[in-house]
Amino acid sequence: MDATSLRAARTQLTDTAPLVHCLTNTVVQAFTANALLAVGAAPAMVDAPEEAAEFAAVASAVLVNVGTVHARTAEAMRLAARAANEAGTPWVLDPVAVGGLSFRTDLAAELVALRPTVVRGNASEVLAVAGAGAGGRGVDSTATADDALAAAEELARRTGGVVAVSGEVDLVTDGTTTVRIGGGSALLTRTTGAGCALGALVAAYVAATGDPLTGTVAAHAHVALAAEVAADLADGPGTFAAQWLDALDALDGDSLAGADVRTS
Amino acid sequence: MDATSLRAARTQLTDTAPLVHCLTNTVVQAFTANALLAVGAAPAMVDAPEEAAEFAAVASAVLVNVGTVHARTAEAMRLAARAANEAGTPWVLDPVAVGGLSFRTDLAAELVALRPTVVRGNASEVLAVAGAGAGGRGVDSTATADDALAAAEELARRTGGVVAVSGEVDLVTDGTTTVRIGGGSALLTRTTGAGCALGALVAAYVAATGDPLTGTVAAHAHVALAAEVAADLADGPGTFAAQWLDALDALDGDSLAGADVRTS
Amino acid sequence: MDATSLRAARTQLTDTAPLVHCLTNTVVQAFTANALLAVGAAPAMVDAPEEAAEFAAVASAVLVNVGTVHARTAEAMRLAARAANEAGTPWVLDPVAVGGLSFRTDLAAELVALRPTVVRGNASEVLAVAGAGAGGRGVDSTATADDALAAAEELARRTGGVVAVSGEVDLVTDGTTTVRIGGGSALLTRTTGAGCALGALVAAYVAATGDPLTGTVAAHAHVALAAEVAADLADGPGTFAAQWLDALDALDGDSLAGADVRTS
Repeated sequence: MDATSLRAARTQLTDTAPLVHCLTNTVVQAFTANALLAVGAAPAMVDAPEEAAEFAAVASAVLVNVGTVHARTAEAMRLAARAANEAGTPWVLDPVAVGGLSFRTDLAAELVALRPTVVRGNASEVLAVAGAGAGGRGVDSTATADDALAAAEELARRTGGVVAVSGEVDLVTDGTTTVRIGGGSALLTRTTGAGCALGALVAAYVAATGDPLTGTVAAHAHVALAAEVAADLADGPGTFAAQWLDALDALDGDSLAGADVRTS
Repeated sequence: MDATSLRAARTQLTDTAPLVHCLTNTVVQAFTANALLAVGAAPAMVDAPEEAAEFAAVASAVLVNVGTVHARTAEAMRLAARAANEAGTPWVLDPVAVGGLSFRTDLAAELVALRPTVVRGNASEVLAVAGAGAGGRGVDSTATADDALAAAEELARRTGGVVAVSGEVDLVTDGTTTVRIGGGSALLTRTTGAGCALGALVAAYVAATGDPLTGTVAAHAHVALAAEVAADLADGPGTFAAQWLDALDALDGDSLAGADVRTS
Repeated sequence: MDATSLRAARTQLTDTAPLVHCLTNTVVQAFTANALLAVGAAPAMVDAPEEAAEFAAVASAVLVNVGTVHARTAEAMRLAARAANEAGTPWVLDPVAVGGLSFRTDLAAELVALRPTVVRGNASEVLAVAGAGAGGRGVDSTATADDALAAAEELARRTGGVVAVSGEVDLVTDGTTTVRIGGGSALLTRTTGAGCALGALVAAYVAATGDPLTGTVAAHAHVALAAEVAADLADGPGTFAAQWLDALDALDGDSLAGADVRTS
């Protein structure tokens, strides 16, 4: 993952303005949509079983986030994931709080079997999805990203896709190559939906680049760099959220090329 | 539509503080409620089938926005629209992404048959509702407002109400008189829920003025002028949203009277 | 209620970072979560019937807010309240718009029979829950907090818990001791979800302090003081919301100890 790929990814995102179909939790829908708009993507929040498959078939990418899932939206998620697979459309699974709650843990297992292009979560969630841990409490993570490295690699090999683990340093792996993204700000963890918005940006970048590993890394770098800019300007978590959206918008390819990204 | 009517509309809105019953999509509920509060109206987000008819009967106006509709909320929308009609209460239909998705397109046809006081959408949506187009992708519009003028006029004559088409220049028509509202800011299109909030402000102004054409124009002018103020103060789409709410609050009748409004 | 208790409450909140399980309305989920994060608590928005009982059993406190309730979420609320009772976990009932709508008024009666640790609402809502009034329109209140004092005291004795009434001066009572909290800002009433976020902070503080009366008073004082700080910095309701979150975050025990709190 070199600077040229990151710079190109930013241009591809702007040029393609991918339509990201989000089936996400009701807490973060607005913030997620605003983050997608800020980077130049087009959000659409369609989570009815009556519409999910129809829309997934025409979207550039699909995000499935189980944060406030229940029976109806679970069915929409299954339909959207299958439609994305049939259409060859990349889709991202964000297994919020999986491991700690039975219903969504069972659902995540079903969805993983459908082989998501990317799984993105914190260490506890990735450990739970990989079957190697008991999960966290809500969206917190009690493990570091590196604690989940082996599980993430194994999971990536199983799905044939990419797995991203958020933490102080983020990990992105396709089971063979692992990329670490540093930087960011602790204020991201004090902002509801920052991690969920990251999942949506992963979907946007994967669609724009056509490459799951590059796209996932670019999204993580974009989020981290914008957080650093916003943290400098913010007086607390409230003003940070607005500044972060401004910074997501302002960040260009040259800035992205300077991200703290290390491949191993 | 003269300056005096617009100035009076602002005063009527402040004086009556209309209670706007919103059945709207979960993405924009908070932003819509904050926009209504900012202009001096009272929002209430009641979208349960168990409550929709009971509440529509006592509200000053009703907003039906199909952005994240599914079976349960569709039923609540039908009940609310019928209750509004029985009570003689004005109601606004915002056909988000109609045309592109079968379920909501069928629902919109049902709702249009109930003759909404105002239909507000972008050109693609209005074309789709009028049966003259295939709709857009999500909330984007691939047509200009003027492309939808003939369809909007025909639709207004069919419903006996008003139809508003958002675009770089907005159009509002009752099938006979057409009013164009200029100004605004491109940042509105980068803010999730700005168009949906406009639909709610239309409902508020129509209730306050008792005149669908004047109320719909006043709401569009209020939104456009506040966007210009906010765009001057904002550093990007994140800070714009908060500044726009501040500007909605601050805008008085004299400012509204100076809006770029042309009648033909 | 003395300054020492308030100072201690702030420390206990920071030290324990209580996990607050929120079953709340979809309008305010994001703002509520951000308010909890701002004060140092951990939010989790879990409102599926499939998960509500399982999560309530492990949470530090539970919030039940009926703002956009419907059949499915009503069932989740019943399950969560029962699970909280079985686990000895404190839970807060926020009876939004109860009195004005039959479905939620019946539900609130059921929930009150389960004896919530705290009931928090405006005067109209508390009067309605106590069976002494006809309720308000939406989240507005047409009565002052003191109008609801007798009803609040009676309700507190019936539930064996605490009842809080929001108003220009807030009242908190356990049926014997009544505490009044002054200060705050009118901008709180122009911000969607400020009252609902207060309900969540009550849950957090009650869990942190282990004392329903002290915790409820501390939450009200925290909200009021932060609102005063934010009102000084804000230019309107939009910028106020972000400043309020910043101020919630920044407020320490010494500041809380200086709140306008009077016991009678």
